[in-house]
Amino acid sequence: MTVSSDQPIIDLRSDTVTTPTPEMRRAMAEALVGDDVYAEDPTVNELQAEAAQLLGFEAGLFMPSGTMTNQVAIAVHTQRGEEVICAEGSHIYEWELGMMATFSGVVPRFVPAPGGVPDPEQLRRAVRRSIHQSPSGLISLENTHNKAGGTVLPLEVIRGAREVASSEGLPLHLDGARVMNAAAALNVPVREITQHFDSVSLCLSKGLGAPVGSVLLGSRAFIGRAHRYRKMMGGGMRQAGILAAAGLIALREGPAKLQDDHRRARVLAEALLNAGHDVDLNTVQTNMIYATIPDAQTHVDRWAAQGLRSSALEPDRVRFVFHHQITDELLERAVAIVGGQAS
Amino acid sequence: MTVSSDQPIIDLRSDTVTTPTPEMRRAMAEALVGDDVYAEDPTVNELQAEAAQLLGFEAGLFMPSGTMTNQVAIAVHTQRGEEVICAEGSHIYEWELGMMATFSGVVPRFVPAPGGVPDPEQLRRAVRRSIHQSPSGLISLENTHNKAGGTVLPLEVIRGAREVASSEGLPLHLDGARVMNAAAALNVPVREITQHFDSVSLCLSKGLGAPVGSVLLGSRAFIGRAHRYRKMMGGGMRQAGILAAAGLIALREGPAKLQDDHRRARVLAEALLNAGHDVDLNTVQTNMIYATIPDAQTHVDRWAAQGLRSSALEPDRVRFVFHHQITDELLERAVAIVGGQAS
Amino acid sequence: MTVSSDQPIIDLRSDTVTTPTPEMRRAMAEALVGDDVYAEDPTVNELQAEAAQLLGFEAGLFMPSGTMTNQVAIAVHTQRGEEVICAEGSHIYEWELGMMATFSGVVPRFVPAPGGVPDPEQLRRAVRRSIHQSPSGLISLENTHNKAGGTVLPLEVIRGAREVASSEGLPLHLDGARVMNAAAALNVPVREITQHFDSVSLCLSKGLGAPVGSVLLGSRAFIGRAHRYRKMMGGGMRQAGILAAAGLIALREGPAKLQDDHRRARVLAEALLNAGHDVDLNTVQTNMIYATIPDAQTHVDRWAAQGLRSSALEPDRVRFVFHHQITDELLERAVAIVGGQAS
Amino acid sequence: MTVSSDQPIIDLRSDTVTTPTPEMRRAMAEALVGDDVYAEDPTVNELQAEAAQLLGFEAGLFMPSGTMTNQVAIAVHTQRGEEVICAEGSHIYEWELGMMATFSGVVPRFVPAPGGVPDPEQLRRAVRRSIHQSPSGLISLENTHNKAGGTVLPLEVIRGAREVASSEGLPLHLDGARVMNAAAALNVPVREITQHFDSVSLCLSKGLGAPVGSVLLGSRAFIGRAHRYRKMMGGGMRQAGILAAAGLIALREGPAKLQDDHRRARVLAEALLNAGHDVDLNTVQTNMIYATIPDAQTHVDRWAAQGLRSSALEPDRVRFVFHHQITDELLERAVAIVGGQAS
Repeated sequence: MTVSSDQPIIDLRSDTVTTPTPEMRRAMAEALVGDDVYAEDPTVNELQAEAAQLLGFEAGLFMPSGTMTNQVAIAVHTQRGEEVICAEGSHIYEWELGMMATFSGVVPRFVPAPGGVPDPEQLRRAVRRSIHQSPSGLISLENTHNKAGGTVLPLEVIRGAREVASSEGLPLHLDGARVMNAAAALNVPVREITQHFDSVSLCLSKGLGAPVGSVLLGSRAFIGRAHRYRKMMGGGMRQAGILAAAGLIALREGPAKLQDDHRRARVLAEALLNAGHDVDLNTVQTNMIYATIPDAQTHVDRWAAQGLRSSALEPDRVRFVFHHQITDELLERAVAIVGGQAS
Repeated sequence: MTVSSDQPIIDLRSDTVTTPTPEMRRAMAEALVGDDVYAEDPTVNELQAEAAQLLGFEAGLFMPSGTMTNQVAIAVHTQRGEEVICAEGSHIYEWELGMMATFSGVVPRFVPAPGGVPDPEQLRRAVRRSIHQSPSGLISLENTHNKAGGTVLPLEVIRGAREVASSEGLPLHLDGARVMNAAAALNVPVREITQHFDSVSLCLSKGLGAPVGSVLLGSRAFIGRAHRYRKMMGGGMRQAGILAAAGLIALREGPAKLQDDHRRARVLAEALLNAGHDVDLNTVQTNMIYATIPDAQTHVDRWAAQGLRSSALEPDRVRFVFHHQITDELLERAVAIVGGQAS
Repeated sequence: MTVSSDQPIIDLRSDTVTTPTPEMRRAMAEALVGDDVYAEDPTVNELQAEAAQLLGFEAGLFMPSGTMTNQVAIAVHTQRGEEVICAEGSHIYEWELGMMATFSGVVPRFVPAPGGVPDPEQLRRAVRRSIHQSPSGLISLENTHNKAGGTVLPLEVIRGAREVASSEGLPLHLDGARVMNAAAALNVPVREITQHFDSVSLCLSKGLGAPVGSVLLGSRAFIGRAHRYRKMMGGGMRQAGILAAAGLIALREGPAKLQDDHRRARVLAEALLNAGHDVDLNTVQTNMIYATIPDAQTHVDRWAAQGLRSSALEPDRVRFVFHHQITDELLERAVAIVGGQAS
Repeated sequence: MTVSSDQPIIDLRSDTVTTPTPEMRRAMAEALVGDDVYAEDPTVNELQAEAAQLLGFEAGLFMPSGTMTNQVAIAVHTQRGEEVICAEGSHIYEWELGMMATFSGVVPRFVPAPGGVPDPEQLRRAVRRSIHQSPSGLISLENTHNKAGGTVLPLEVIRGAREVASSEGLPLHLDGARVMNAAAALNVPVREITQHFDSVSLCLSKGLGAPVGSVLLGSRAFIGRAHRYRKMMGGGMRQAGILAAAGLIALREGPAKLQDDHRRARVLAEALLNAGHDVDLNTVQTNMIYATIPDAQTHVDRWAAQGLRSSALEPDRVRFVFHHQITDELLERAVAIVGGQAS
């Protein structure tokens, strides 16, 4: 069976694949803009201020990607040759192509993280002080943790990490690309999560639905230093307000839609389970499902032929990610496809 | 005298300060987009193909800034510890904040360049082969040369540099942020310039008027390798077609406007000269004027109070840059202001 | 009880603590030397040729430390942003202070290695090819594996790694700081081990007993490229033949002493076990013992007060390392001290 | 005419080519040593303390080369992406193979330096503060200045540079590879020169005659930080006291011999001039001569055939460097050779 031409693709490869809503398109067309390299773009400035306010920071800085916000944060916090303590499977290492080494000259120091959740005591034991070893420079957490399945860090783990960072004199960064999903899952204001960190990277173009962009949040001094590294990496954009206009809508309206994404992910996860696939429902906490499926690519290809796109991230691992453009109707079809009942 | 509220600012600080035209805004609002990290954004793909075609290359890659296109090119062409041979005052060194060192681990090797034009024989003598020195890895030219005043490289100099690069076995890169201005000044198709290079960086957000973006051009293999470095620097954007839609219009319609910019720059340069300022008309070849003015900032501030913005790039050097949003009417006012006749 | 002034210290902190033998001192005093930066030091040249011959390579390069030989090898084999596949706990990561990141811009990709031995299939699965991830650039093994207790890689594991490297098109490096100990333990000529690698780093100042120096081995082309990186790191020494003269003696006479070191390590390991300490005898394969001892530092301090030095490398882990200056008589005293019977 | 086999070569290629004196060889053979990676080598410690005392610093750190002492100093003083202000032709750029970029991620910012002497006002004007440019991180001087001919920095220039560094809040480093030659030329205690700097790199293996080694001097805190970078670069040597023993003799006895080297250089310079070669006697201030000679290599080869070695550093530039193993008798022969009267 092949994809019927009159049915939309159900694209669950990532929450990055959304296209801008009509409202976003209108906002982009009408945006007030200026040269952001001179900090004169009013829409960018508004977005930065609003994100800072929402997450509880003094200042923000808009950039073209989450890789850049994370890597600029690492550069500001560390010195050459230091270690970045992070959970196994962290995005800053797995999907950011060695940038921490090439640009900042630092190496990762991994801590075990079953279900994406590191034990604060393990973070403490990972701190290095010997003059014969790389000194620790930063602790970086990820919430939700992508590779572990979009899992949520319990607040007590974050508090524990904060305590370790403070007592060890280390900065604490959050790769919060999907921290809004974490807040939705915990049903708390996002500041209850983000207040414990020295810096947070927030993506507007994942679950929140903007076409392009991420914001780095921190103190005014931190953001001041981040400007230079953003420029070095080529993130100084001119009339970036075009993008920020859509970003503002994503920031304002995106969070309210996330609990629906989570509910739908749960429904499809159960359908996969019913169809005999191996899914650990404990890890389906937000908008992602990772199923363990031998011959992953074969399944992905078969479902794609029926109009359902997913990703074979490893030979035996398939990922599905929900976002606001997957309606209940599309969910129903997805359920039918993985259940082998699609027509 | 202060700026009258009913008169628009004449912003000559840079050609990066333009705001998108209504046509660009409409195109952005209606752009077909996809996830460009998966190379699925049709508008980005169209822009890349069209720029490649125009400049005579196999492939192109869209990025958020000219700093990124240049620095990705340097990364692809060089290995750690090599030297990049370039003209004194090159943008890749003066305004790209040490990125060539921090990311690529390479150092500049400067060649004298009176009026922005290096002598090919000097390029050849700058090549290093001794095992006790950094080997040369790349020759990089800039056309037009920003710091020298927007000056144009004569075609025979480019041919000479090509000959040196080929005989020495070195790649040749062009920082062509404003290569369309060079083509307009020489009144030749841009390919007559760009065909001599292994890679070219072209900015859409300078004279061409797009809000954001640059394109790197090269062979298919070169662009293939550029993808990884773009991603490392954080230049992998999602629905970048929003920006590419405006970029396409800039690429199609921008070049035709440049000769007017050049004519207007010439008029203001003569006005400055008439007003007793030190301007070398020989260097006013495109859309820029650099005037040598003691107490530069004082003049810049006084003119700004009258509605004319310029840049004091050094204590005794003021830069004016023309772009498509400086009409003849605004030019007339600018002439009056620098002539001390503004009312 | 304190150290009696007429008894020599039994220094088991490392095999790096040996002092030169009278024969080495005489050789250093009489060495023919030249300026090695000009490759004119005959004694250095002799050492390099002899080490290359012994390990089965075309060429060698003398450097001041094993960190430098390893890091130069990494630099030659890799490009920025790549991954170095290695066993967990590898010296190139644990004890070389992030140099792979700061200098070469590469990150480690760890493979589990129980007892210091990685499974070749795990090496293969660690290879990355996706354009969204850092590409693999090098596989690096360590033999003997320091952090795992001086354990020896079985020859079939090395052959398996060779097969993976070849089929994946990746170079294979050996951190062979103590590869002579591995050869002694396996009772094979060292070439049977080293022949499978593209490059090997060999330390003269560990078990072999030279005061300073390591040699990097590889093809002539590889060593040609290594020269530049050695010079960049500051490893270009002038009349280095002074050190090479002792290195030659270490290379010629050191290997024959290693089996005695191994035998003695075994004796002390059994004594520790008898004294109730937790030692896994399976890991005591060469000249090292790692004992798991709660309050490690307390024990280390108590033994030190009796004249036996060891290292508390972790809060609950003590390391003892044998070398040619630990005679049977000193061993006997060490056994008495850890057995609580020293007087 | 070829080299007679019974006459020693007159090697003026560099002052790095000396071989150790009998006294140095004896000292190396008898040196008390320990593991310097644990800071336990008494001879290294003695050398470090004595050099610190002599140059007026709190602490010193021994390393295998001057490249390493300079590059470690740059690493300690700077952060990624900064500029190192230095004179044109500085050794840290010309002969240290891009290490400042590859390791520290910094770029040079050159200041004109006729005769090797920069104007302090030019140093001040080279300081960058704009957020659009690389910030200045360090000012580095070189004394004597190798590429300018071994020329000496006047004390008032050093004082001027100190004033600039202090008022701009920048550290001031001295590449003092040959600062003892500068002190000898000025006939002042070396501390009168070195007291103005935050750190100094001193070579023992150039004019002072040791086989291997340099010392970095600075405050205790500075040297504390330098340890880590030395280890990263692979400069942690084990029983380095072997080398330090010769270094101590070089440090104690070398300086007294330098004025003879300078006198002899002057004699040969005049002989070159008399023979019709172009030598600027104003630049022959210490132990070096740079002669401008078309077809430099041809002359170098012809003289070499007569037993006099020099270096053709550029196509039209020959360098001669004196050291303590060039006696008056060898000088006489050298004079005869360049005068065309050698038999």
